[in-house]
Amino acid sequence: MNINKLISKRSLKTMAGTGKKFEFTPNKYFTSNTSKDVWSLTNEAAAQAAQTSRNKDRELINLGQGFFSYSPPQFAIKEAQKALEIPLVNQYSPTRGRASLLNSLIKLYSPFYGKELKQENITITTGANEGILSCLMGLLNAGDEVIVFEPFFDQYISNIELMGGKVVYVPINPPKDLDQRITEGTEWTIDFEQFRNAITPKTKAVIVNSPHNPIGKVFTKEELTKLGEICVENNVIIISDEVYEFLYFNDSFTRIATLSPEIGQLTLTVGSAGKTFAATGWRIGWVISQNPELLQYVSKAHTRICFASPSPLQEACANSINDALESGYFEKMRKEYVQKFKIFNAVFEELGLPYTKPEGTYFVLADFSKVKIPEDYPWPEEILDKGKDFRISHWLINELGVVAIPPTEFYIKEHEKAAENLLRFAVCKDDEYLEKAVERLRLLKDYL
Amino acid sequence: MNINKLISKRSLKTMAGTGKKFEFTPNKYFTSNTSKDVWSLTNEAAAQAAQTSRNKDRELINLGQGFFSYSPPQFAIKEAQKALEIPLVNQYSPTRGRASLLNSLIKLYSPFYGKELKQENITITTGANEGILSCLMGLLNAGDEVIVFEPFFDQYISNIELMGGKVVYVPINPPKDLDQRITEGTEWTIDFEQFRNAITPKTKAVIVNSPHNPIGKVFTKEELTKLGEICVENNVIIISDEVYEFLYFNDSFTRIATLSPEIGQLTLTVGSAGKTFAATGWRIGWVISQNPELLQYVSKAHTRICFASPSPLQEACANSINDALESGYFEKMRKEYVQKFKIFNAVFEELGLPYTKPEGTYFVLADFSKVKIPEDYPWPEEILDKGKDFRISHWLINELGVVAIPPTEFYIKEHEKAAENLLRFAVCKDDEYLEKAVERLRLLKDYL
Repeated sequence: MNINKLISKRSLKTMAGTGKKFEFTPNKYFTSNTSKDVWSLTNEAAAQAAQTSRNKDRELINLGQGFFSYSPPQFAIKEAQKALEIPLVNQYSPTRGRASLLNSLIKLYSPFYGKELKQENITITTGANEGILSCLMGLLNAGDEVIVFEPFFDQYISNIELMGGKVVYVPINPPKDLDQRITEGTEWTIDFEQFRNAITPKTKAVIVNSPHNPIGKVFTKEELTKLGEICVENNVIIISDEVYEFLYFNDSFTRIATLSPEIGQLTLTVGSAGKTFAATGWRIGWVISQNPELLQYVSKAHTRICFASPSPLQEACANSINDALESGYFEKMRKEYVQKFKIFNAVFEELGLPYTKPEGTYFVLADFSKVKIPEDYPWPEEILDKGKDFRISHWLINELGVVAIPPTEFYIKEHEKAAENLLRFAVCKDDEYLEKAVERLRLLKDYL
Repeated sequence: MNINKLISKRSLKTMAGTGKKFEFTPNKYFTSNTSKDVWSLTNEAAAQAAQTSRNKDRELINLGQGFFSYSPPQFAIKEAQKALEIPLVNQYSPTRGRASLLNSLIKLYSPFYGKELKQENITITTGANEGILSCLMGLLNAGDEVIVFEPFFDQYISNIELMGGKVVYVPINPPKDLDQRITEGTEWTIDFEQFRNAITPKTKAVIVNSPHNPIGKVFTKEELTKLGEICVENNVIIISDEVYEFLYFNDSFTRIATLSPEIGQLTLTVGSAGKTFAATGWRIGWVISQNPELLQYVSKAHTRICFASPSPLQEACANSINDALESGYFEKMRKEYVQKFKIFNAVFEELGLPYTKPEGTYFVLADFSKVKIPEDYPWPEEILDKGKDFRISHWLINELGVVAIPPTEFYIKEHEKAAENLLRFAVCKDDEYLEKAVERLRLLKDYL
């Protein structure tokens, strides 16, 4: 969307008791983007569907938004409770983050970088979302371009555009027969010539997301090397969103920042305690860079956005990282997720519904082309201009009581055909809940 | 500062192992504002001073940044610990805030508004700082003007300018003989004709701060009514920063939003759990408006900035507000602060140093004109272009081991003369600590 084309809208409000009107023009960005976001639409549909006669005697199975159905690990809860007991841990932290958390992150990440990171290589943010916004606010000037791969996490777009940047889209191409068979994440590919051609003198940065939401693809070392080298040639900063870094299910996970000193110099890597410790409500994230000169602008922006991040939860994360390293938590979590996908994806195998095998994240994309959705269902008006997947999602919520996310929200309008038969399911739920989900989805066999 | 005049700076970094240079141009806002902020300068000076021979055998008394030296009340800590035990309270909250906290705030604030507020009148933010940024991001378009009273809280300025807005300054005029006698907050006054003249067709909003940091002034009902009426006449939105609302020491505190329905329609009021529960590290704030149509833009911006605010701390605040209302916490806190100022200000009376009697906040401004500071002290270079108060502060840290904030940071360069002999002291410390501060400041008598 071109921010310059946005139309201004006037909001009028008659003032109580007078004939005078209070007029104001809000930020045009918000008046030009008035359609409801996928999260609100899906949550509202779910809340409504829960009241219908069909659903009132059964539990609504929510595999929509990626929040965990279970608690953070007990050690993390205990660490947070302990942190609250220390008077000063309830007060402002340094804007760059508490020394304890910076030091734990140094311990956690230095082995991946093959060298000892320093405090100047890390800045703590209020969740990864604010981390990415801090990167963009720290770096963008009006008119700068940022390349985003499609499908994308929806917050990238607003955050780039609100900072006066322009989004340039490059697709991640799905395998041609996505609707015919079970596919691999590696079969979703970038055309690197297309990426190179998308770079202009105005290109400031590219956002890469691996493991990838919603595809579940883990970018290979070869792909990331190619991408990194093109960025080095063209002075393009890499913002690497690696919030699912501890949820990969093949042998290894490649961090683009570690592929060469040159790539490391222009990379900002974003991580998340919420994803790592099943605590999406804690709002602790971090940005790491081997280039402190680059990272300082992220810190400066963060200071202006949030000043500092929640202290007791920072302290809890600092100690939880140490606990996790000692107890082998990260490996255990990976094994648990291999098991979760085994439980859940079984139903797609059973039904013969194609899906992309997740190599990482807690999401799976399934193809619903074979499912016969009635044409004349009472669709709510607000989804009529959306992709077909919004109708599939709405139908699934109402008929089967299962909530999933329509992924065309992660595409621009012109490209949404690519995902119109897909739904994204989140498996960050306890196994019993996933079993229930499977049982419910089995009902789909009547619609094949 | 005119954002268009900012000069771009190129950062160069030779890439390891190659002759190639990685070049990037960060957000120009940050390269044009390179001088260190008052918080960093003061904290660094304090850290250095703690190492000198003069200070190494005595405790450094830090009355600089406004963090509490003591814990949040025990009930708040307990509520946070309990909240962490509930699995879903560790996951994302709704972006507008948890229902429990919205409902507690309705209970807390409805009596002040003389009517039952609704959930649509409140949005939760990640601290008041992000609350104010959300107001500005929700409302400002490039080139919009925002009026700020001087002295101002420094974050206002960057947040307006980063959103492409222009700051228009209107002074709060000190009493002429500020350096001669103990003054009252009410003697610091706004020239309302000057305020009216500062309004142009581009004026989108004004930021008002009462109780006022750093003056300690509580704006009177008459002042706020006049200000509000001018805003109504001119369609100027009021962003009322009331984070110190429960720290007022006269009979009552006036909330501008409650003065008339017309004023209420254009006011956004910002509150803070950090200030209210001595928990500046919790990062929970809120924005309240009787005009949901106006407030929705604040919520939209907040969703893009932080997505949602920390869940367990929101839940803790929800329950703590109920506990506080039942136990008379707010009244007790006010009484404690009257006592704290009594303890602390005694030393200025004793020394005959003029100060402004705080009517609210936990800050007091004292006048150091009478203190003889040596001209030829070894001043660090980075404070040489700053106001004289930076030298007084530096000297006080090094000679007496007492940290206070130089308030010219809250003025633009052209107006800093008004505050060059003042220092701001924060008394949000336990009484024993304040007694120690008094003892230390008594040493000033040798320099009068």
